[in-house]
Amino acid sequence: MKPEQIHILESFARLDIERAKRTGIPEAVFAEGKSPQQVLALLLSLSEKAGYALATRVQSMVAAQVMDEIPKDRKTSYNQTGRTLLVTRPDYEPKSTGGKIAILAAGTSDLPVAEEARVTAEVMGCEVLAYYDVGVAGIHRLVQPIEEILKKEAAAIVVVAGMEGALPSVVRGLVPMPVIGVPTSIGYGYGGRGEAALMSMLQSCAPGLTVVNIDNGFGAGATAALVANRVAQAISRSQH
Amino acid sequence: MKPEQIHILESFARLDIERAKRTGIPEAVFAEGKSPQQVLALLLSLSEKAGYALATRVQSMVAAQVMDEIPKDRKTSYNQTGRTLLVTRPDYEPKSTGGKIAILAAGTSDLPVAEEARVTAEVMGCEVLAYYDVGVAGIHRLVQPIEEILKKEAAAIVVVAGMEGALPSVVRGLVPMPVIGVPTSIGYGYGGRGEAALMSMLQSCAPGLTVVNIDNGFGAGATAALVANRVAQAISRSQH
Amino acid sequence: MKPEQIHILESFARLDIERAKRTGIPEAVFAEGKSPQQVLALLLSLSEKAGYALATRVQSMVAAQVMDEIPKDRKTSYNQTGRTLLVTRPDYEPKSTGGKIAILAAGTSDLPVAEEARVTAEVMGCEVLAYYDVGVAGIHRLVQPIEEILKKEAAAIVVVAGMEGALPSVVRGLVPMPVIGVPTSIGYGYGGRGEAALMSMLQSCAPGLTVVNIDNGFGAGATAALVANRVAQAISRSQH
Amino acid sequence: MKPEQIHILESFARLDIERAKRTGIPEAVFAEGKSPQQVLALLLSLSEKAGYALATRVQSMVAAQVMDEIPKDRKTSYNQTGRTLLVTRPDYEPKSTGGKIAILAAGTSDLPVAEEARVTAEVMGCEVLAYYDVGVAGIHRLVQPIEEILKKEAAAIVVVAGMEGALPSVVRGLVPMPVIGVPTSIGYGYGGRGEAALMSMLQSCAPGLTVVNIDNGFGAGATAALVANRVAQAISRSQH
Amino acid sequence: MKPEQIHILESFARLDIERAKRTGIPEAVFAEGKSPQQVLALLLSLSEKAGYALATRVQSMVAAQVMDEIPKDRKTSYNQTGRTLLVTRPDYEPKSTGGKIAILAAGTSDLPVAEEARVTAEVMGCEVLAYYDVGVAGIHRLVQPIEEILKKEAAAIVVVAGMEGALPSVVRGLVPMPVIGVPTSIGYGYGGRGEAALMSMLQSCAPGLTVVNIDNGFGAGATAALVANRVAQAISRSQH
Amino acid sequence: MKPEQIHILESFARLDIERAKRTGIPEAVFAEGKSPQQVLALLLSLSEKAGYALATRVQSMVAAQVMDEIPKDRKTSYNQTGRTLLVTRPDYEPKSTGGKIAILAAGTSDLPVAEEARVTAEVMGCEVLAYYDVGVAGIHRLVQPIEEILKKEAAAIVVVAGMEGALPSVVRGLVPMPVIGVPTSIGYGYGGRGEAALMSMLQSCAPGLTVVNIDNGFGAGATAALVANRVAQAISRSQH
Amino acid sequence: MKPEQIHILESFARLDIERAKRTGIPEAVFAEGKSPQQVLALLLSLSEKAGYALATRVQSMVAAQVMDEIPKDRKTSYNQTGRTLLVTRPDYEPKSTGGKIAILAAGTSDLPVAEEARVTAEVMGCEVLAYYDVGVAGIHRLVQPIEEILKKEAAAIVVVAGMEGALPSVVRGLVPMPVIGVPTSIGYGYGGRGEAALMSMLQSCAPGLTVVNIDNGFGAGATAALVANRVAQAISRSQH
Amino acid sequence: MKPEQIHILESFARLDIERAKRTGIPEAVFAEGKSPQQVLALLLSLSEKAGYALATRVQSMVAAQVMDEIPKDRKTSYNQTGRTLLVTRPDYEPKSTGGKIAILAAGTSDLPVAEEARVTAEVMGCEVLAYYDVGVAGIHRLVQPIEEILKKEAAAIVVVAGMEGALPSVVRGLVPMPVIGVPTSIGYGYGGRGEAALMSMLQSCAPGLTVVNIDNGFGAGATAALVANRVAQAISRSQH
Repeated sequence: MKPEQIHILESFARLDIERAKRTGIPEAVFAEGKSPQQVLALLLSLSEKAGYALATRVQSMVAAQVMDEIPKDRKTSYNQTGRTLLVTRPDYEPKSTGGKIAILAAGTSDLPVAEEARVTAEVMGCEVLAYYDVGVAGIHRLVQPIEEILKKEAAAIVVVAGMEGALPSVVRGLVPMPVIGVPTSIGYGYGGRGEAALMSMLQSCAPGLTVVNIDNGFGAGATAALVANRVAQAISRSQH
Repeated sequence: MKPEQIHILESFARLDIERAKRTGIPEAVFAEGKSPQQVLALLLSLSEKAGYALATRVQSMVAAQVMDEIPKDRKTSYNQTGRTLLVTRPDYEPKSTGGKIAILAAGTSDLPVAEEARVTAEVMGCEVLAYYDVGVAGIHRLVQPIEEILKKEAAAIVVVAGMEGALPSVVRGLVPMPVIGVPTSIGYGYGGRGEAALMSMLQSCAPGLTVVNIDNGFGAGATAALVANRVAQAISRSQH
Repeated sequence: MKPEQIHILESFARLDIERAKRTGIPEAVFAEGKSPQQVLALLLSLSEKAGYALATRVQSMVAAQVMDEIPKDRKTSYNQTGRTLLVTRPDYEPKSTGGKIAILAAGTSDLPVAEEARVTAEVMGCEVLAYYDVGVAGIHRLVQPIEEILKKEAAAIVVVAGMEGALPSVVRGLVPMPVIGVPTSIGYGYGGRGEAALMSMLQSCAPGLTVVNIDNGFGAGATAALVANRVAQAISRSQH
Repeated sequence: MKPEQIHILESFARLDIERAKRTGIPEAVFAEGKSPQQVLALLLSLSEKAGYALATRVQSMVAAQVMDEIPKDRKTSYNQTGRTLLVTRPDYEPKSTGGKIAILAAGTSDLPVAEEARVTAEVMGCEVLAYYDVGVAGIHRLVQPIEEILKKEAAAIVVVAGMEGALPSVVRGLVPMPVIGVPTSIGYGYGGRGEAALMSMLQSCAPGLTVVNIDNGFGAGATAALVANRVAQAISRSQH
Repeated sequence: MKPEQIHILESFARLDIERAKRTGIPEAVFAEGKSPQQVLALLLSLSEKAGYALATRVQSMVAAQVMDEIPKDRKTSYNQTGRTLLVTRPDYEPKSTGGKIAILAAGTSDLPVAEEARVTAEVMGCEVLAYYDVGVAGIHRLVQPIEEILKKEAAAIVVVAGMEGALPSVVRGLVPMPVIGVPTSIGYGYGGRGEAALMSMLQSCAPGLTVVNIDNGFGAGATAALVANRVAQAISRSQH
Repeated sequence: MKPEQIHILESFARLDIERAKRTGIPEAVFAEGKSPQQVLALLLSLSEKAGYALATRVQSMVAAQVMDEIPKDRKTSYNQTGRTLLVTRPDYEPKSTGGKIAILAAGTSDLPVAEEARVTAEVMGCEVLAYYDVGVAGIHRLVQPIEEILKKEAAAIVVVAGMEGALPSVVRGLVPMPVIGVPTSIGYGYGGRGEAALMSMLQSCAPGLTVVNIDNGFGAGATAALVANRVAQAISRSQH
Repeated sequence: MKPEQIHILESFARLDIERAKRTGIPEAVFAEGKSPQQVLALLLSLSEKAGYALATRVQSMVAAQVMDEIPKDRKTSYNQTGRTLLVTRPDYEPKSTGGKIAILAAGTSDLPVAEEARVTAEVMGCEVLAYYDVGVAGIHRLVQPIEEILKKEAAAIVVVAGMEGALPSVVRGLVPMPVIGVPTSIGYGYGGRGEAALMSMLQSCAPGLTVVNIDNGFGAGATAALVANRVAQAISRSQH
Repeated sequence: MKPEQIHILESFARLDIERAKRTGIPEAVFAEGKSPQQVLALLLSLSEKAGYALATRVQSMVAAQVMDEIPKDRKTSYNQTGRTLLVTRPDYEPKSTGGKIAILAAGTSDLPVAEEARVTAEVMGCEVLAYYDVGVAGIHRLVQPIEEILKKEAAAIVVVAGMEGALPSVVRGLVPMPVIGVPTSIGYGYGGRGEAALMSMLQSCAPGLTVVNIDNGFGAGATAALVANRVAQAISRSQH
């Protein structure tokens, strides 16, 4: 092994130690396809270091097993709709960043993805304004959410929608905040597993709309919180 | 050959003689991929029988050549935007059915498809209310069209849109007429050759919306006119 | 929040109150992926307002649970083949519009989709002429349906077909009514989940044929009924 | 190199010498993407051995160049529609096998593929009954072809169709011969480059229909001729 | 209803009465997605008319139920591997046509499809030479099959293969008979549900190879038998 | 027309008047598929109202023609690489918002998309740190850009990449800003028109990365500027 | 049958007798879709000849059944994670070739595929350096593996990764050995069944990276071992 | 900027300086989509450092322009078929590594890709045994190549094939060397732009076969040379 290669590799070794600090988003455990034992081990190890740890896509039976076997010195909180499991050290104090985001979901079937986004943003210290069942078919229900979002000045909006995925474009056309679209695997027939919604959001005429992959509530919530936290930090810093 | 087979085939022979009468829509010449000579021959033969003949997807150079070589006893009318070429016998009197339809197009790039639909419906005797450049991004421009469509009681609406193809759903949610969506091959990247628009229209939450294939202005215009002509005929018949 | 935005939002608020009246098609509950509790709640709320409420894609077990828990002041009717559940207030009087449509299904496996279309059109007040198992492979069985449809002057025809999806084109070529094609997810191998049928219908040489998404019996039935009701209304109005 | 491997390889060496005899179909030159020089060289070499050689997909300019440069001791015959170029030695006597096939093409645009099939079958010694422009939209034109095919007892039928590709199924349902479907890249929008036609033929309810790839007239003509030649040979042998 | 339309429809009415005679292939019941009751009813009705009836894709439990409830005056024969169920009237005498085909299957997993083809061809009166597990990976096992096929002069060969689907091309390159390729849904990852095999067969350099859809053993067996029966008939006729 | 409908439509009429103010992003002219005359007309109309107007995807010949025909009272600026054309009124004073973004491009071929993003963000008043040719294959070139981006505290980063599209994930893993990935249509073979890059970015393990459609530099630049302007505004507001 | 054909076929007959010797990779049993009886029979037959036999994709229940019924004169070894089952004759002595490969897996979910590769290479006599959970998100964990791989001079590296599949490119950029990428069916939404990973690896900018199909651990392990064994053999030969 | 981040970035800075040494494959210029000026600049810069530089996908007109403008102190060599352009410093002495590879191409149309692979491997110091036009349709032409490859002990084989892409599997089944398959974009209709060939190679039953992307001759040649150079190095080292 040549000196040059050693150097590269050593520097890699220091790379991930402070990932959450460096990137602004904590590591999470994607539980799908992992055994309860693997999920438990990862949650314990992460929460040991950071005070808390979040797992996503946790089926109720996996969650029950993990919560059963978790040591007494950890607290757990399971969100059944969003399928998230949060583990915290007793000494862990959730901090509020002052960041504010909003989450809108088009239909009842989009709730699991919306809740995954909500929990993620809250874990990152944000206040979340959540408005569900405000799809295009019932567009009048958009009024109160949009009013509040404008008044409370949320820094970014997550919009969750399946079927033809038109809601993010509509919302983006009404507000001055960036919108993060999350297509969901809700629909039927041609394009019904989320492709139609994903395609529509990517084709949208409304600039200021960016997207994450189908059903990726975690990614959308984390990105919105990242933006919100930067705005909050900017305000806070400039005030000191 | 057995008698049974002869019978079947003989009856087939009579099948297409009066296609336009039987189906309510005249045969048209799809000019794409045909030589000017072939287009000319077909237009002459069809107009000989029916008094008029319509060709679609006629490039300007093909149209010029056909119009050059057409006998003096025919009149021609070329629509450059819609790429349609209409040939009529001098004795042909266009009849008005009393049917009324509307056509909305989302953007400037959707005009060729919209015009193809308009000419088709007019050839079938309908009055056409045409409103172009009323896309979702400029949704206020929808006001006057929708007002007129409601007031004049168009029997069906053709809505032409590319990109994310949201306009047909929006229109359908505001009116009591059936809407025929025509996705166009306008867009870019993933889903940009009309697939996103087609998928969105097929996934639409708005029942009462049916679709034709990408860029198929002829099919949409013909179907809308068919509906309008039936309504007009119903009115006319019940008044006598 | 600026005045302009308030105005927009307020007007939205009034938008969906009378959706059924405005669009001519009642809202329905898409039960797939919803819990029995959610389906029940939606059906109660909708039937409270409109006198009746329709749910589609209701599995028998969900239907049983909903019917078990429904209050005594509601009547229910479950169509096992079509997987539809209709809930009505005791004082609700189904009205007949005089509209008339026809539904043809190619094969035994297409029945669920055809029945979904039938129930939908009937709920919208139409008379439905239903002819099943009249696929291209047994084309002689088309005779009696087509004769009746022509004689009774159905205003629109829903044609349900899987496999290569050729029936809608064939039917459209024989009648002067608009045809709404519904591809079904019946078939095998390449294109067998409805794509072949959908593609064929979209490529069809027969203008006057429009399509809805794979297995979307509700959309097809509702559109056909919309057309039929307009024709009936035109007749009725012109007679007064 | 071990003896076993040498043995295998030696036997391979003898494998292709008499390909046409062994497989019943002569080798052809697929000219697309080859230079005029390469096409010329291959045609000379093949015709030297077999007395004749066929090239397919030969653009007119390539054909012109090849015909210009070909030695005096060869005869050439170029089919402009089918884009085939046949080269023969002066001493070559085309033999007739007594085999008989039929070729039907749905539309004008399908002619190049149909002609490629026709030339191929003729080169293989078959009589070809060719009927063009007999698409589903003008189904009465099928009468005379089907009558003749039944009377003359063609051994196999090639049916060429683009768009929704329904003609092969229809034909197969009327005759007792095997049908070979050739989807063509004619159509528009979704599925319009031959996929819809290919899918439809593969999903067809009509057993006895097999398919070749999109636009593969050579393969279809060769297979039909192969069947026809076997039938002719069976008759001829049993008579001696 | 106009006289012309009555005529067309009447002639349709006679169309399907003698389908098997006209097309050379008997109608079969595709049992997938049908209830045991539906399968039973169809088998009884078909066997009543024709003396026998074949159902394909019959799961063992459906077969058991059908066989349990079938009247005493019918005989049944279930092929578990091929999932076919044959029902015959006691007076039915299977006829031998003298036709001969061969079936080759690449791997153990391809057996269900191969057996479906075999039973179909036998029901149509053919002798079937069946050779299984002769895939490209064990190409030496091809020797005895090919020798026998050449010696016994099978009229057509069905080749069943999944994965990369290379066997049909290889076989076709060694024999003078037409080959019908059946891709199977065996494989993994990209292209593993039969698409790779289907594509390969359609791209094959070996003319004389045509294909049916993925897993369509019935279609392949029926087509091969159709060809074989024609050859047998030609021989038989010319001898009389 | 009912009063309710009139109200809805009237409110729509006011909707788009101040789109730029309401959404934070100015309308732009997508020149692809438009004639020079159409582009000119749109640019004049928009710049009349807003003082400036931006067109994207302007081919050099179209740009030349527009610049030739533009009235003297407008200034134009054409960016040949980015294919953008900016038109301003003489009295227009570009305002600086204080917002700051960064743009990284992986390869030389990605420059047009990156430049489109840059011009867009500058038009929106942002300072842009642009670093090109910093692809994964030359990852050491990332050092200086990342250092500067961190030091100057850009609020958001646009990362443009084709091929396997890995750069956005890598960058996002090193910085605390949100990253907007733009896949480009650079690559070859399977997935080479941008699909591989799009898929990779959507599958990325790095939360905080959102994407726009293939080659959509305008959307990415506009979104980044939107975020940056909000941060700048937050700072500015809290200081007053 | 002609002499030429006999010759070809005879030579085929000798072709597969010594496949493992000729190709350097032993035949294995792909257990997916086979019954326990079929798997057992194949393993017994192969191990009889070669001393050992390997089956892949063996579900635990199938493995249990096979191990229950295996004769006493065989030893079995089941790897639950990798789903491989190895059967050996008592007299079989595993030989070490001196070949050395490395296997890296990106995430916990990639273990089954990585283990399948490891067992395969070990059965082929190689030493395997296995490093799991070294994904791009925790890139510092790459340090120790790369150091060891360089020091121990593995001849080839298998890199297993799902999601965006970036690890193989990264690894290949750091080492002088050929890398074999194995995309796994881990991911979600668009491209999540392995297509994104497969596409990325095929689009990779890093030459020296080749790929096998999604989840094909056996193929990757076998190829790496083949390379390693050649290097070992070269060394060994040149030393004698 | 925090110290940790500085450290990471500094180490990156040293990363790519000696890429060729570290990875065993020199950097190359992918000329497609680059201007002659850009290609020239990159070739000069790379050849300055390394003594030589290779560009791939160089159209003849681009090559001519580059060769025209290149300074006198460089030598150039353009391979028209393979579209490669090699630039060397006068003092550059190509070194031979002793590595040996083979390249087989199925058809005439595959030559450009095969030549790209050949030039790449030669630039890397390998001897290349090249055999073209040895496709499956002319399998006897495989004899001499395979004999030579076995005798000369090539370390790896590149097999280039379009259409159904069967050649790599066949070759791999006959030799003990690893095979690298290169699907080419040669074919027609469904799967004809290289997808069928790519899929087939990925589905291949023959382990020891890995693939690169469609038309990627550079990647295949480089990988084969990498393997060959390692074998040569192993021999050379063990002899000293």
